Amino acid sequence: MVEAARARDAADPLAGYRARFALPEGVIYLDGNSLGALPLATRAAMARVIEREWGEGLIRSWNTPEVGGAGWFDMASRIGGKIAPLVGAAPQEVIACDSTSVNLFKLIAAALALRPGRKVVLSEAGNFPTDLYMIAGLEAQGLAERRLAERARLAEALDGEVALLLLTHVHYRTGELFDMAALTRAAHEAGALVLWDLSHSTGALPVDLHAAGADFAVGCGYKYLCGGPGAPAFAFVAERHHADLRQPLTGWFGHAAPFAFSDDYAPAPGIERLQCGTPPVLGLTALEVGVDLIAEIGVERLHAKSRALSEFFLECLGTLGVALELASPVASDQRGSQLSFRHPEAYALCQALIARGVIGDFRAPDVLRLGF
Amino acid sequence: MVEAARARDAADPLAGYRARFALPEGVIYLDGNSLGALPLATRAAMARVIEREWGEGLIRSWNTPEVGGAGWFDMASRIGGKIAPLVGAAPQEVIACDSTSVNLFKLIAAALALRPGRKVVLSEAGNFPTDLYMIAGLEAQGLAERRLAERARLAEALDGEVALLLLTHVHYRTGELFDMAALTRAAHEAGALVLWDLSHSTGALPVDLHAAGADFAVGCGYKYLCGGPGAPAFAFVAERHHADLRQPLTGWFGHAAPFAFSDDYAPAPGIERLQCGTPPVLGLTALEVGVDLIAEIGVERLHAKSRALSEFFLECLGTLGVALELASPVASDQRGSQLSFRHPEAYALCQALIARGVIGDFRAPDVLRLGF
Repeated sequence: MVEAARARDAADPLAGYRARFALPEGVIYLDGNSLGALPLATRAAMARVIEREWGEGLIRSWNTPEVGGAGWFDMASRIGGKIAPLVGAAPQEVIACDSTSVNLFKLIAAALALRPGRKVVLSEAGNFPTDLYMIAGLEAQGLAERRLAERARLAEALDGEVALLLLTHVHYRTGELFDMAALTRAAHEAGALVLWDLSHSTGALPVDLHAAGADFAVGCGYKYLCGGPGAPAFAFVAERHHADLRQPLTGWFGHAAPFAFSDDYAPAPGIERLQCGTPPVLGLTALEVGVDLIAEIGVERLHAKSRALSEFFLECLGTLGVALELASPVASDQRGSQLSFRHPEAYALCQALIARGVIGDFRAPDVLRLGF
Repeated sequence: MVEAARARDAADPLAGYRARFALPEGVIYLDGNSLGALPLATRAAMARVIEREWGEGLIRSWNTPEVGGAGWFDMASRIGGKIAPLVGAAPQEVIACDSTSVNLFKLIAAALALRPGRKVVLSEAGNFPTDLYMIAGLEAQGLAERRLAERARLAEALDGEVALLLLTHVHYRTGELFDMAALTRAAHEAGALVLWDLSHSTGALPVDLHAAGADFAVGCGYKYLCGGPGAPAFAFVAERHHADLRQPLTGWFGHAAPFAFSDDYAPAPGIERLQCGTPPVLGLTALEVGVDLIAEIGVERLHAKSRALSEFFLECLGTLGVALELASPVASDQRGSQLSFRHPEAYALCQALIARGVIGDFRAPDVLRLGF
């Protein structure tokens, strides 16, 4: 097995990228799906934003580079535009802002406003908690009605009451993939809109929001995009919805003219209306480095390597005679970039592995999750 | 005047703190009320969080320091607890999270939920835009009704329909101070709650939320707290409201047990329920440095120096015979840490000053704003 692994490394077209990340000695990191590793280039970018842009430029850095600024004002759009090709969107359809949770709230509310007379937001039982909780937040306000169905019964739960179908493309626990195009079509046939949570997809595997005809999407900046702990998230809105899009978190940075300081809100013309407060410049700076690096490597190549690695891992387990119950789909084209194993002592297993320098994570109640 | 200025500098008990900030050569920075200067200690803190905590610690850094982590999980509460004494609150009443705008939305919605049958949110015409826009966002959802009054007529606008009075303690444009205690009392007598926006107060002048009997507050991290561009903001909720507080942005980090991954939302017991998504660790790290430094200098001393500086500035203008219309109160105990001047060419004046290394800012349509 060690021979086979060495042969794979020697033939790996991505091997050179290992040196672009600061991974600690002696650690085998299988948790990029929880927190992406640190790109080496982040150091210089953060020193630049802190020393030059903040320390020396001060408020002048909000201006465009043409007049000596650092372009802070447009960062959210600029980085959104760089994320767009990773998810099959046009640059003007994506913006980097707030957290995944906050963006979910905005877009669930926006979808409900686009489907007057319907209140149901349909999702999957066991979806990532924050997705379900943000529906619950709107439900407690009397604006939404949460409906959960098992994965296999989602299609039949799509009736004329459903305003929005909200699903996570790659399941955080099992890694199982939804067929984005088929479910989007089914939702549209029922007159509902679709919001895809791409937190476990973006930067890990090819995603094509346009081909699927998706309406909305959100995603995470700190997992596969390597934007750092708690990095800003992103949001996608298909251009056909821009003109009618009304989201409730109408902060001053989403205004058509933030510096006119008028008493009344008027949304910015495009995706910028999803912004709320002042952009988090330090976090966005680190996110941009991660996005640039992932885009340079290429999601197709990353995905191919991830699949090969996870298949090899399962093969090694077989050779070693380790019997662990796989919670992920066996076929690597039906799962995201992770392998999940069910075990009654999964927590202890995870701790023991970490103590040996192999970092994965535990997901209650009984899942050991390894990212590849 | 130059002699007088030198004498003041020589006798200034805070003079030594100048060296704790990285201010560029040749710049006179009068815009800390827009973006606070860079504390030198931020460099080391950011290098630590990037290299050691993210790069080496990876997901282990979420844990408490006792088990080798960096305490990321509790950062929002820890930094909130450090901001608390700057605003006259108890440590368990403040949390550092999201943006001022997002926190406004949470607390306006929470106040409306605590006053069933009332929908009016009363504020001042000309309040900082994001405060007014966040009310408008809830109004567009049918949950609130925005009512604006002139400053002098706020008391008479406080009738039995008002759920919440939302005001900014120091006006962003004029620097004028509200009497926090008197207005809070008036609101309570009308059966309304009060939410203070402390964006232009926190770290600049003493604030006593407890003495005023305030219900809620929000504030900004990137102005006087020197947390960096777009730093996380904070929110205060008086402890008496904690048990009943329901806010709509119910993300997974506000859950009582975020890592139980249950389908149903249950709020964390205390102020932690105001959290929404994963905390922005890089931004919080920079914010903590700023908060620590401001706390060390002391808000009382900062305020005394700020008042002395602004009074001396006005005296110099008089001596030089510069006739500028002061938009701020003349008495320095009735204004925050700024002087605003009205001038039809305020924009050009501001640009000309910046070109000479004197950085203030312009607020449309006709205000030149200088922070001290």
